[in-house]
Amino acid sequence: MSTPVSDFHAIIPAGGIGSRLWPLSRADAPKFLHDLTGSGHTLLQDTWNRLEPLAGPDRIAVVTGRAHRAAVEKELPGIPDKNVILESEPRDSTAAIGLAAAILARREPDVIIGSFAADHVIRVPHLFDWAVKQAIAVAREGYICTIGIPPTEPSIGFGYIKKAAELIVDGAPEAATVERFVEKPDLDTAKEYFADRSYLWNAGMFISRADVLLGEIAESRPQLYAGLMDLAEAWDDRDARGPVVDRVWPTLEKIAIDYAVAEPAAARGRLAVIPGHFDWDDVGDFASLAKLNSHGRPNDLAILGENARILSDAASGIVVSQTNRVISLIGVKDIVVVDTPDALLVTTSENAQRVKGVVDALKLSGRGEVL
Amino acid sequence: MSTPVSDFHAIIPAGGIGSRLWPLSRADAPKFLHDLTGSGHTLLQDTWNRLEPLAGPDRIAVVTGRAHRAAVEKELPGIPDKNVILESEPRDSTAAIGLAAAILARREPDVIIGSFAADHVIRVPHLFDWAVKQAIAVAREGYICTIGIPPTEPSIGFGYIKKAAELIVDGAPEAATVERFVEKPDLDTAKEYFADRSYLWNAGMFISRADVLLGEIAESRPQLYAGLMDLAEAWDDRDARGPVVDRVWPTLEKIAIDYAVAEPAAARGRLAVIPGHFDWDDVGDFASLAKLNSHGRPNDLAILGENARILSDAASGIVVSQTNRVISLIGVKDIVVVDTPDALLVTTSENAQRVKGVVDALKLSGRGEVL
Repeated sequence: MSTPVSDFHAIIPAGGIGSRLWPLSRADAPKFLHDLTGSGHTLLQDTWNRLEPLAGPDRIAVVTGRAHRAAVEKELPGIPDKNVILESEPRDSTAAIGLAAAILARREPDVIIGSFAADHVIRVPHLFDWAVKQAIAVAREGYICTIGIPPTEPSIGFGYIKKAAELIVDGAPEAATVERFVEKPDLDTAKEYFADRSYLWNAGMFISRADVLLGEIAESRPQLYAGLMDLAEAWDDRDARGPVVDRVWPTLEKIAIDYAVAEPAAARGRLAVIPGHFDWDDVGDFASLAKLNSHGRPNDLAILGENARILSDAASGIVVSQTNRVISLIGVKDIVVVDTPDALLVTTSENAQRVKGVVDALKLSGRGEVL
Repeated sequence: MSTPVSDFHAIIPAGGIGSRLWPLSRADAPKFLHDLTGSGHTLLQDTWNRLEPLAGPDRIAVVTGRAHRAAVEKELPGIPDKNVILESEPRDSTAAIGLAAAILARREPDVIIGSFAADHVIRVPHLFDWAVKQAIAVAREGYICTIGIPPTEPSIGFGYIKKAAELIVDGAPEAATVERFVEKPDLDTAKEYFADRSYLWNAGMFISRADVLLGEIAESRPQLYAGLMDLAEAWDDRDARGPVVDRVWPTLEKIAIDYAVAEPAAARGRLAVIPGHFDWDDVGDFASLAKLNSHGRPNDLAILGENARILSDAASGIVVSQTNRVISLIGVKDIVVVDTPDALLVTTSENAQRVKGVVDALKLSGRGEVL
């Protein structure tokens, strides 16, 4: 692909269970540890493989929960120990990305970081490469730069980024400033956004100088910033780290980076965006997973698992098969069947977003062992 | 209930897999070996329990395949050895019922037999009792008597019996002769039948003198009759039976008793019918099973299995759970989910009749081990 960018360091926050993909995705086998595209690799490996040409194998950090350490190290045998940043417990994205930024900034003050979710699907890697390189050029100018995806439909499943003026940066011909971040809209609003070409999907990618990102956190969330600084200072010192983590971690504010960093930066004209012309999906639910695996044939049933045991006349939908049972579907349309050894889900594409509610109900009903 | 009728002998043909109830019903666990009503008894036991007050425990014969001998004897510990009539291979209902009739007629020439399927569901036993007693009175007059069910809807899933003139028989105030037997009609025809009160559902029940039934077979199917006579003659002689079975069984014509006996008897005015005012269902498919287990609440999901592991907002339909997995249904209506250790079926009530097609497809695709 290309030579790594020498001052660039990638961060992969690998958190989140993916409740909308239950019972495929579980607390002990979250979304990023699954192969959801039939590529033969987990989403985490695919993410690593996309970033390696840009950052090099020694410059990709993964921020994950202690419970997933072994799985992450198994999936990514090339990752240096110091680049596995373990969270005591999840404190949302500002803490995860901010901590990695603070640790990396102490190791290398001028580093440019790029944060990319562990569980998104991206196709056409050279276009991803090109977008990140433009974003790095913009970040070098002191901006926090996102990558936004030109919408292909009026989705209500994603947040949106509204572009403002064109931004003149050498090496980033498509750069623009961002007017604002918008949360997942209703359908009418999504249709407006889709018609108005200045809205892009928020793919949760942030590229900036580490010190610029930390400066934004310092401005908007001074207490959280102080905690992250304390953690970073002790992090690379084996003796010091433990006590500081014990003291500071529980105090870290849980807040999404969109609110703590992107929105305030946009308001001050310090947020930029590069359009990403690659195929992107956050695989947010089974409807999305079905689409991703239907290979452009909308009337085909998508199958994750062994085809040979599935007898179906189903038009569209998805079957995820993790057992060796024969599965027979008759006369069902847009069906979602997820067959695992201890749990079975049957729903429809239309109801895919409601799967999270089942997870909540299972928690309440004391069935946590299948989550 | 009542004193058994001394010259009455019941026959329970226990054959048929119930392909439309796959994967609940299997070759090695056919419909009659399942508890489909939550009664705590299999359908075969329920059938036995209904007949015992009418015939007595020593006068109920079961005709079944060799493969089911052990299961039948386990389910019916009170059955005398000589009343388990084993088929070498299935040859349809005329051979099954005719053989039992021939064997019983040799043991007791004036016996009145009544044949009742092993896998139907009947509620309100005293009304069943009353109908059978009327039918026995009619049979004693030399008629072949059926019991027909007054339709509660224009079903296309059952055959129909058209009543003709009233029949004056002492002890059978509701007796009538039968004009004809009609196969499963289309919906328009079923609606006509439903509006015209002279049509009853054919519940596959036949009561007659054994010699009268055999006379009808002799008339309509002389070769089959000769075969049945040869078998019956040798049956109760341990040494003679084997060679005769080996020689004769493969030659027995496969024909339903409706064609070989009921239709010709009706044409000659020798078929009678008693209306059965009990609830009856042949549990022909999962739609029927759902209805049977919804306890009159049409918007309830019927559940066969352990409720506690099922999380559902499904309105109507049925879940059959034979594993200990958590089952979650979201936003699906009239759904049929049958969860067994080696096979899973997902369909809808509307498609319930099509389940048989899957069984055929599984046979063709070499997946016979799950049938």
